[in-house]
Amino acid sequence: MFKLFYSPGSCALASHIALEEAGAEYTAARVDFSKGEQRSPEYLAVNPKGRVPALVNDDGILTETPAISAYVAQRWPPANLAPLDNPFAFARVQAFNSYLCSTVHVAHAHRMRGTRWADDPAAIEEMKRKAPESVGAAFALIENGMLEGPWVMGERYTYLFTLAEWLDGDGVDLAKLPRVIAHRTRMYDRLAVKQVIAQERG
Amino acid sequence: MFKLFYSPGSCALASHIALEEAGAEYTAARVDFSKGEQRSPEYLAVNPKGRVPALVNDDGILTETPAISAYVAQRWPPANLAPLDNPFAFARVQAFNSYLCSTVHVAHAHRMRGTRWADDPAAIEEMKRKAPESVGAAFALIENGMLEGPWVMGERYTYLFTLAEWLDGDGVDLAKLPRVIAHRTRMYDRLAVKQVIAQERG
Repeated sequence: MFKLFYSPGSCALASHIALEEAGAEYTAARVDFSKGEQRSPEYLAVNPKGRVPALVNDDGILTETPAISAYVAQRWPPANLAPLDNPFAFARVQAFNSYLCSTVHVAHAHRMRGTRWADDPAAIEEMKRKAPESVGAAFALIENGMLEGPWVMGERYTYLFTLAEWLDGDGVDLAKLPRVIAHRTRMYDRLAVKQVIAQERG
Repeated sequence: MFKLFYSPGSCALASHIALEEAGAEYTAARVDFSKGEQRSPEYLAVNPKGRVPALVNDDGILTETPAISAYVAQRWPPANLAPLDNPFAFARVQAFNSYLCSTVHVAHAHRMRGTRWADDPAAIEEMKRKAPESVGAAFALIENGMLEGPWVMGERYTYLFTLAEWLDGDGVDLAKLPRVIAHRTRMYDRLAVKQVIAQERG
């Protein structure tokens, strides 16, 4: 049995959707960031990084969205979540996920979590001010080349959706991202996405 | 034939070492950041992100260190660069690499590339000021838990080394990271590492 630790509105949504798409048997445990539960001794024993997602099973604990995504794809091959029999195609999916975690999510985090990289309130405000530009630039590359469609790289695939959900709050001009927004809309129509969103926000 | 685009001192070193460890046939092409070559039309045609590494072969173009690392491991199984027959163990390696690219490298980048996230010079200075603390905190988690030894997770494995090479410049107190530094020293002794460093810096 698998247990996923998540927080609503976080990137753990991607792992949650992947588990649901895979038809995995799992439970989902909410970590309440508003109460600082991600910094509790109990949770730090699960994930010393104090972040979500964390996926626990008998083998141990997995963290980091790209790793969990790859694992779920390999663990449940019938769900066809990644091109498992083609290392180059598989690596292209990993490259896209790596871009999401190291560039897109990081640009977004400068609006939400500037204290990771600065203490001065003026610097933190300056990071917030620039977030629409840096998030927008990262999504422009996706819009104008990386997103193949109808899903990312033509395959079923969920991590882009999770970060695209933050675009409105990030103050990015959605009119410049019609393909990204159309992809987001297609994702909302998937049964697994509906179920997970209902569970996380219900 | 494979062609790796790299810049000396960048995280492309990790992919370069992986190719050398794998015994791959490849050529390495230097991208001169001091001349802005990463922003040239020729290079942007290879990698629209304007970054290194980029690995090109007949199948196409791969970017992002975690993806290239996973690909090299899968493409040259005899090199035993990752636990290919165990999805959970493989995913743990991906999780470590994902942490390196999304947290450790990003913390470092606030010393080197603050203009990605702010325009105000005072904010950029503030990011530089905090970099030793944020890089140090990320490496403390590696030192005190994630690094199993003798290699990362007990396996041959090269991406940590690349970022650990930046610790001196990042102003991190090396005395607090004896295991990370011992790992870095072990890596310097590897033939593939010696050869790649000589090629990149020769």
